[in-house]
Amino acid sequence: MRAIDVIRKKRDGGELSRDEIEFFVSSYTADRIPDYQAAAWLMAVLLRGMSRAEIAALTESMLHSGSVLDLSDIPGRKVDKHSTGGVGDKTSLVIAPLVAAAGEPVPMISGRGLGHSGGTLDKLESIPGFNVNLSLAEFRRVLSTCGCALIGQTAEIAPADKKLYALRDVTATVESPPLICGSIMSKKLAEGIDALVLDVKTGCGAFMKSEESAVLLAELMVETGMRMGKKVMALITDMDQPLGNKVGNALEVEECIEIMRGAGPADLRQLCVELAAWMLLLGERVSSLDEGKRLSEELIASGAALEKFRQIIALQGGDTRVIDDAGRLPQAEHTLPILSRSDGFVASIQCEHVGIASLALGGGREKKEDRIDPAVGIVVHKKVGDAVEAGEPLATLHYNSEARLKEARRLLEASYMVAQQPPISRRPLIHRIIQGTRHVEVGK
Amino acid sequence: MRAIDVIRKKRDGGELSRDEIEFFVSSYTADRIPDYQAAAWLMAVLLRGMSRAEIAALTESMLHSGSVLDLSDIPGRKVDKHSTGGVGDKTSLVIAPLVAAAGEPVPMISGRGLGHSGGTLDKLESIPGFNVNLSLAEFRRVLSTCGCALIGQTAEIAPADKKLYALRDVTATVESPPLICGSIMSKKLAEGIDALVLDVKTGCGAFMKSEESAVLLAELMVETGMRMGKKVMALITDMDQPLGNKVGNALEVEECIEIMRGAGPADLRQLCVELAAWMLLLGERVSSLDEGKRLSEELIASGAALEKFRQIIALQGGDTRVIDDAGRLPQAEHTLPILSRSDGFVASIQCEHVGIASLALGGGREKKEDRIDPAVGIVVHKKVGDAVEAGEPLATLHYNSEARLKEARRLLEASYMVAQQPPISRRPLIHRIIQGTRHVEVGK
Repeated sequence: MRAIDVIRKKRDGGELSRDEIEFFVSSYTADRIPDYQAAAWLMAVLLRGMSRAEIAALTESMLHSGSVLDLSDIPGRKVDKHSTGGVGDKTSLVIAPLVAAAGEPVPMISGRGLGHSGGTLDKLESIPGFNVNLSLAEFRRVLSTCGCALIGQTAEIAPADKKLYALRDVTATVESPPLICGSIMSKKLAEGIDALVLDVKTGCGAFMKSEESAVLLAELMVETGMRMGKKVMALITDMDQPLGNKVGNALEVEECIEIMRGAGPADLRQLCVELAAWMLLLGERVSSLDEGKRLSEELIASGAALEKFRQIIALQGGDTRVIDDAGRLPQAEHTLPILSRSDGFVASIQCEHVGIASLALGGGREKKEDRIDPAVGIVVHKKVGDAVEAGEPLATLHYNSEARLKEARRLLEASYMVAQQPPISRRPLIHRIIQGTRHVEVGK
Repeated sequence: MRAIDVIRKKRDGGELSRDEIEFFVSSYTADRIPDYQAAAWLMAVLLRGMSRAEIAALTESMLHSGSVLDLSDIPGRKVDKHSTGGVGDKTSLVIAPLVAAAGEPVPMISGRGLGHSGGTLDKLESIPGFNVNLSLAEFRRVLSTCGCALIGQTAEIAPADKKLYALRDVTATVESPPLICGSIMSKKLAEGIDALVLDVKTGCGAFMKSEESAVLLAELMVETGMRMGKKVMALITDMDQPLGNKVGNALEVEECIEIMRGAGPADLRQLCVELAAWMLLLGERVSSLDEGKRLSEELIASGAALEKFRQIIALQGGDTRVIDDAGRLPQAEHTLPILSRSDGFVASIQCEHVGIASLALGGGREKKEDRIDPAVGIVVHKKVGDAVEAGEPLATLHYNSEARLKEARRLLEASYMVAQQPPISRRPLIHRIIQGTRHVEVGK
């Protein structure tokens, strides 16, 4: 088999066989296909799309490019959650300990911030001492000790994805539902889980801006997971404004602790409870979604979720004192409120720009080698629909560098739109639930 | 400007600006853009197409990536011909001396065989001693001495094309009319010519199988050349069966000499006269196409064309004795006729397979580093429409290696279809003439 024939077939809109996809992925991972041929192939896949069978073959080839964890010696059904990413999207830090506190093991391999969106690993690392770079042996030990472990991708997990992702990032081939599906599902299925809840974001702060594209991606991932014998469902959730009130690494850890204390913003709490309930249902810990929600709320109210979080932090080398004293998390030196210029109601928040503002303050990376500043970020005081008076703060910038402030301030100011009347309609937090599959054409 | 933004814009179907194209081509030529980004861009161009303005910018950027010859010190209008390639397509060897014999300078920079098609340089090199690797200074000297010189692409001419072409060849991005147009026209315009006649082949032995795709490419090239101030026209000519009777390097030189002696097959002679007449017309040597044809036929009949060819061979170091003694050209050791199995008429010849059969004998290259055998090839005895009896030879293989014979024989046997009745319709030799432009959409 020759790489060029596989490229040509996809270029001309053909459906690749399982063998052709397996050949391409394994040869590229083993450096037998050069980057330039893989780049041409990725662009052809992005523009021509892939059938369901091709996506399944792609995901399996990427999955089997590395180790697949066997966690069968750990009792219980292993469940995980994956979000496609957004602004203030911090549910993992609440859900993982919460579901583990219910006795359901959560082996969670997460990512770093990407573009304007934050990453679970970066947030966890704002806890002094917290180590996300565990070996697979240490990961297994922490997981069997406390029912949850939170780490980054290791070299053993889906090396094909690691190589392909780096190439996609520099060849404008990121935004392809088949490639996104293969990337996410190969990593998640390599965790040795039984069930997976997907949180696919939609709105101006999501990678999938339209609901249609989010639904398509969710359906692809659900079907791909089910083909591979896993229980998988997806929620399409709103990312048209930041989730919760805090954006930035240490600020988001603080807000998660608030939620686990029974406080914190309603939207974040609702989504955490909803996602945890689905995990408990798919993990067969509960027999209905409502039972899952009640159990999740009880585990927050009883403090069990927070105690589980404390245990995880301790086992992964972090300073557990942050739980009772948020002042021990990195703090920005300065704050600057953004004030409303008029009386009215918040009509919209350009959510992606809020994420970029946080990135501009140093809360994310522009290049892979950038170091992030865990202390900086944004606290949102007013959300869509809220009444506001002239001179009242809409949001507050937490910053360490005057040089970085200017761009962030400009972006944040421009991201708020205040109108005379309250918005006529509000977007729901949960747009849609995707369970099972229906047959849809695979788009571009 | 960033390469990834240019890739993304084309990926999404946008029209690139002149600056963006110039940036991409010049940065890639200077090794500032890596192969993998160029490969993704080429695939996006192939699948999304390019506007006329983009194609003009691409051609100019590639043209100006190297030297553009200034031949203004050589008197007369410089004209050239370019063919998109086929099987037995040997007109350059007749036309170049013929037009030069009329007093019109022909500075011809040609290519090597590509895939199943032959190349002018390979054919010339079957003449013992003939040197196609002249420096630009030697090229200029030969041209000003005898009015014609025949060489290969030098490092100074369109280096962007050299790099892009090598990448297209291994990334399945060859078959794109905008990229083909840029490649051909940048090289041809770098020759310092005033006028260009394009011979765009169509049929089963051509790269453009359908007449529509051949017309599209011809129109793109004619318009691009005209935008750049050159006189350019195109003939769409038939390549549904081999041109003339001989296929293979030395065999084709022999057939060209026959034509210049006033003999040889009618189709080859007709096309040579037609193309030469257009060159003389565009070069303003004659005032009508008919006058051009009459002059061309006179220059053949008088022996002037053949004498010019002798002069070119001598100036480029070749053995001029081949002209009077074809036995001095490389000869294959063995021949094998392919016999008709039935009485009837030749219904079709799978022309591409005839080319591949010649390649299989060693007449072309499968990999770039392969050496070709100048002596081998195929002599066609029966062409489409010819009556044939059972046991009569359809064609003869000229070969040097039994090991190479089997595949070539199988291909050649399978390429002939003999039917009971003569074909109802015959394809014309010249399908269409493209002069000036009409506005058509640029396809993929």
